[in-house]
Amino acid sequence: MLVPRVWSSVRQGLSGALSRTAGSWAPGEGRKMDISGVYPPVTTPFTATAEVDYGKLEENLHKLATFPFRGFLVQGSNGEFPFLTSSERLEVVSRARQVLPKDKLLLAGSGCESTQATVEMTVSMAQVGADAAVVVTPCYYRGRMSSAALIHHYTKVADLSPIPVVLYSVPVNTGLDLPVDAVVTLSQHPNIVGIKDSGGDVTRIGLIVHKTQRQDFQVLAGSAGFLLAGYAVGAVGGVCALANVLGAQVCQLERLCLTGQWEDAQKLQHRLIEPNTAVTQRFGIPGLKKTMDWFGYYGGPCRAPLQELSPAQEEMLRLDFTSNGWL
Amino acid sequence: MLVPRVWSSVRQGLSGALSRTAGSWAPGEGRKMDISGVYPPVTTPFTATAEVDYGKLEENLHKLATFPFRGFLVQGSNGEFPFLTSSERLEVVSRARQVLPKDKLLLAGSGCESTQATVEMTVSMAQVGADAAVVVTPCYYRGRMSSAALIHHYTKVADLSPIPVVLYSVPVNTGLDLPVDAVVTLSQHPNIVGIKDSGGDVTRIGLIVHKTQRQDFQVLAGSAGFLLAGYAVGAVGGVCALANVLGAQVCQLERLCLTGQWEDAQKLQHRLIEPNTAVTQRFGIPGLKKTMDWFGYYGGPCRAPLQELSPAQEEMLRLDFTSNGWL
Amino acid sequence: MLVPRVWSSVRQGLSGALSRTAGSWAPGEGRKMDISGVYPPVTTPFTATAEVDYGKLEENLHKLATFPFRGFLVQGSNGEFPFLTSSERLEVVSRARQVLPKDKLLLAGSGCESTQATVEMTVSMAQVGADAAVVVTPCYYRGRMSSAALIHHYTKVADLSPIPVVLYSVPVNTGLDLPVDAVVTLSQHPNIVGIKDSGGDVTRIGLIVHKTQRQDFQVLAGSAGFLLAGYAVGAVGGVCALANVLGAQVCQLERLCLTGQWEDAQKLQHRLIEPNTAVTQRFGIPGLKKTMDWFGYYGGPCRAPLQELSPAQEEMLRLDFTSNGWL
Amino acid sequence: MLVPRVWSSVRQGLSGALSRTAGSWAPGEGRKMDISGVYPPVTTPFTATAEVDYGKLEENLHKLATFPFRGFLVQGSNGEFPFLTSSERLEVVSRARQVLPKDKLLLAGSGCESTQATVEMTVSMAQVGADAAVVVTPCYYRGRMSSAALIHHYTKVADLSPIPVVLYSVPVNTGLDLPVDAVVTLSQHPNIVGIKDSGGDVTRIGLIVHKTQRQDFQVLAGSAGFLLAGYAVGAVGGVCALANVLGAQVCQLERLCLTGQWEDAQKLQHRLIEPNTAVTQRFGIPGLKKTMDWFGYYGGPCRAPLQELSPAQEEMLRLDFTSNGWL
Repeated sequence: MLVPRVWSSVRQGLSGALSRTAGSWAPGEGRKMDISGVYPPVTTPFTATAEVDYGKLEENLHKLATFPFRGFLVQGSNGEFPFLTSSERLEVVSRARQVLPKDKLLLAGSGCESTQATVEMTVSMAQVGADAAVVVTPCYYRGRMSSAALIHHYTKVADLSPIPVVLYSVPVNTGLDLPVDAVVTLSQHPNIVGIKDSGGDVTRIGLIVHKTQRQDFQVLAGSAGFLLAGYAVGAVGGVCALANVLGAQVCQLERLCLTGQWEDAQKLQHRLIEPNTAVTQRFGIPGLKKTMDWFGYYGGPCRAPLQELSPAQEEMLRLDFTSNGWL
Repeated sequence: MLVPRVWSSVRQGLSGALSRTAGSWAPGEGRKMDISGVYPPVTTPFTATAEVDYGKLEENLHKLATFPFRGFLVQGSNGEFPFLTSSERLEVVSRARQVLPKDKLLLAGSGCESTQATVEMTVSMAQVGADAAVVVTPCYYRGRMSSAALIHHYTKVADLSPIPVVLYSVPVNTGLDLPVDAVVTLSQHPNIVGIKDSGGDVTRIGLIVHKTQRQDFQVLAGSAGFLLAGYAVGAVGGVCALANVLGAQVCQLERLCLTGQWEDAQKLQHRLIEPNTAVTQRFGIPGLKKTMDWFGYYGGPCRAPLQELSPAQEEMLRLDFTSNGWL
Repeated sequence: MLVPRVWSSVRQGLSGALSRTAGSWAPGEGRKMDISGVYPPVTTPFTATAEVDYGKLEENLHKLATFPFRGFLVQGSNGEFPFLTSSERLEVVSRARQVLPKDKLLLAGSGCESTQATVEMTVSMAQVGADAAVVVTPCYYRGRMSSAALIHHYTKVADLSPIPVVLYSVPVNTGLDLPVDAVVTLSQHPNIVGIKDSGGDVTRIGLIVHKTQRQDFQVLAGSAGFLLAGYAVGAVGGVCALANVLGAQVCQLERLCLTGQWEDAQKLQHRLIEPNTAVTQRFGIPGLKKTMDWFGYYGGPCRAPLQELSPAQEEMLRLDFTSNGWL
Repeated sequence: MLVPRVWSSVRQGLSGALSRTAGSWAPGEGRKMDISGVYPPVTTPFTATAEVDYGKLEENLHKLATFPFRGFLVQGSNGEFPFLTSSERLEVVSRARQVLPKDKLLLAGSGCESTQATVEMTVSMAQVGADAAVVVTPCYYRGRMSSAALIHHYTKVADLSPIPVVLYSVPVNTGLDLPVDAVVTLSQHPNIVGIKDSGGDVTRIGLIVHKTQRQDFQVLAGSAGFLLAGYAVGAVGGVCALANVLGAQVCQLERLCLTGQWEDAQKLQHRLIEPNTAVTQRFGIPGLKKTMDWFGYYGGPCRAPLQELSPAQEEMLRLDFTSNGWL
């Protein structure tokens, strides 16, 4: 397994890089990477003894690759990344890259709490095949995460990353919304190509699109619940947990939006809201994995402390799908 | 002045009505009132000594009536209703009705903390000319405002109101979001025609539209910031503070949405977000009134404890308009 | 009934006063009124048809007056003041003053949303017998309630009030914590004698005591849950909902604290926390009134939209008292 | 360096243990470890190039060990533990144990997001010398961290930990308050000896003391801001960031409380609130480290993304100490 060696060489090689001042990143001559489209934020399958089940991961990806997704995100919040070791995080990226068709973009969540660890993880993920890095806001010291601190953090990461960086704001997990002024400043960095915004505030999304219009900066809606509204205000795609189970439908919603069939889009969007809420806020990853089991994928258990759903919760989860005609 | 007499007769007449059980409202045979369209939530002008300036109110309404608004809301949150006496609240409605063309709907905010007071105010406002009542959630005891309590409150008000009732959820002021399950239940009441939703969560708006689709129930976006997105998910109009100063533009945005010109709509929506935020969350009613002064209306002072903007705040407010090409 | 005349004369007389600049209040030569001690925040009894039951109010006060309370607060949050008309608010004060022994202080909650209405209500309450006014922070426009706005509001009220003013911060209802810097500034006003602080943050209470130590300014804990801790950091008493039902016990806790019997105080405090939480956050005024029924007072119904407890809730409420040995 | 070997052996040894059911921990026959007293939560010193400076750590501990602290906490929130590698976390514990006198308790923060990682870290920290483990609530998936999930997490950790476990609730960082019912359940575990509660809600602390009185369970106040109030309601000590710079004063406050000199205690407590707030909520670890520099310790830089204070912030920080007579 290649991972450990890569990891340790990264750690050594970066100690000097990290003390350099920001701005050393050499921009390419052209436009930023196009990241438009729909991505499922892939779950990490575990065995009954809580080991990562790479075989099941590959099987899930094989099945998912039949849909017209633009690509896949591994180790977004739905990937249980805070529960994985560094080696596991890299191995998941490596396996995903090997199994996925070349034309599918592989986004990898590389955020850590410290700037240094995030840089190291980002570089390592690039080395094992990630096409772009999705970097969540550090959050444990959220009271100190001012715009200035976050701008410094992301600038350093983008300076040192060999692959494009996507900002990632997910207040339900981090208790922190990446401020619009920081997003606007960071959009000017040649290696920062967009943001995955999971907050659901489309006024904010519209404002970000508006204020970054000269920067070739792209917004991905962070949930299927506001994918239509996101497109309406200028988002170019979405990273949607629901796409792990209703992949065809989420891709169809994208197509309806892109072709201006807003009436049909609205009808479809409406039927996706409750299932989407069910596998995100309402029942979380345990709900998403349970639903994957129903839809022919491998969901399986979560790592502790995440708990399985109770039978009553399963019933409610199922109802959110049946009442909208999906089961 | 007619008001006091009306008011006192209402108080006497209702004491019996309020002890009746809910459900006594006799529905008409037909459809619910159509409230689709754009409404400015009108401000209440005050003199330098903090008296209501009814003359200026009439002047503002005259000017605003030249735009293709569906109607007007008096005593929404922007009307400083918590600062008005009962008599003043009724007189504002009365004057507005007299000065407005007959084809403009007059919505009146009639919410009070108690159910009884809300019923009385609603009935009185109907008597002085309101076409529909917009009823904000009671909020002082928000910890006790369960779905059951809110359903009971609105049912009682709708039962006894001679005019249609519009629910009103504005968490930034009330600290309370009218729960979706309560909205769905209340949508079945024949005298409840819709909701003004000011929370800005379009996933929620989409879900409300979806789950009330058989009820002839209408959603109005509570702000110009998400008017386009609101239309995209099924709202039928908006109550927009910004329409007090950029009336033509908000009406144009409505027309672009209704005629499916989404690209132009998006461009216009983008340019309205910062001005909208400026006259709502950022600088509140003092900001809205200051802007009205700039745009040829009478803004004037607010009642205390609301404070005038500082010169530095005025500067920032102005910049939110000039940077988007509106001043 | 005297009230209406007083009220209307107040309204006329104050129109001039309100336009005067702040600072016109002529301080007495001496110290501020001593408000130390324990106060029950009295509930407002209603009949089955939701009329104020002044007879039951008087009966409750008679019974409560047998305990060594310093006085009583009418129309704190537990008095359902947002549900009362102006006339009812004044009549409650008037009746309470008539029935209470002369040596009991009568505090009256006079807060309204506007500064003008608060001044009028405060003056009127003084005229019908209140010894001091407890003024809650205005809160509907909480986003604009800066320290400057709140300082302006309270200064105006204190300038024009014939009786001492007590600040009142109750974030669970208002969504607003009166900022410490505003409290410190206001403590210098000769007619502002203290604060009822219901937030439960004793670090804040200690800081307020510390920074106002030269101002003869007094802090009352707003709940029996932190009465002991409040005394420990320098509070001089408390306004405790629980004192409506466990009056002897709350007075005993006060005595243990004042005489330095901290060990016994701690044991008693511990046994009061769950009952206190039950009649405040957990079950609110409906819970307090239900408990009053159990303890020989008249609790009765609340005005709508407050709802009665369900049987299951009543059971939990009872358990919070029985498990601590009070029932 | 011993650490890596220990770490890897732990990982192998535990894979079986983790799949065992909870409850396998064999309780000693006696009482729980006594953890009463004051502890500074030690900072982690870094060099200018952001390496851990173990020499400075030892120097700081030498100086701090001259005060009558009960012991020290390494890798509480003030130790920047989320920014350290696993090896660094263990090495800090190891060095601290070597340099500290035998009679000083060494508490080590061993919390990670997953249950498995927390168990491994706890076991490893025990092996390198920690006397007890302080385990912060997992928080990234806070929406799923029900009482049941947290009880399961802590039970597993306590079952498998060779050293006593202290619960750790710090909502300002985690956005999560360990529910009282979970604390009460967990207090019955023979290997869970107490809780470090940093929320500042003394009503809650009193309730925890009350409801765990038969369990030999101990509460440590998580901040010097409410140390006096904490003692008043039954806490037995505190973990106080301020003790890193005002060690003598915090120990004196403890002594005044333990000997019942509440009047002097109150005066001292008052003077510690502003400095305490300054080095915690207001300016965070950068503020604490800057203050350490002023008081003769090595503060030094934080790891990114934490930023240095601006000169204006330093000025305010200094004022919080000078205005209370500490500088």
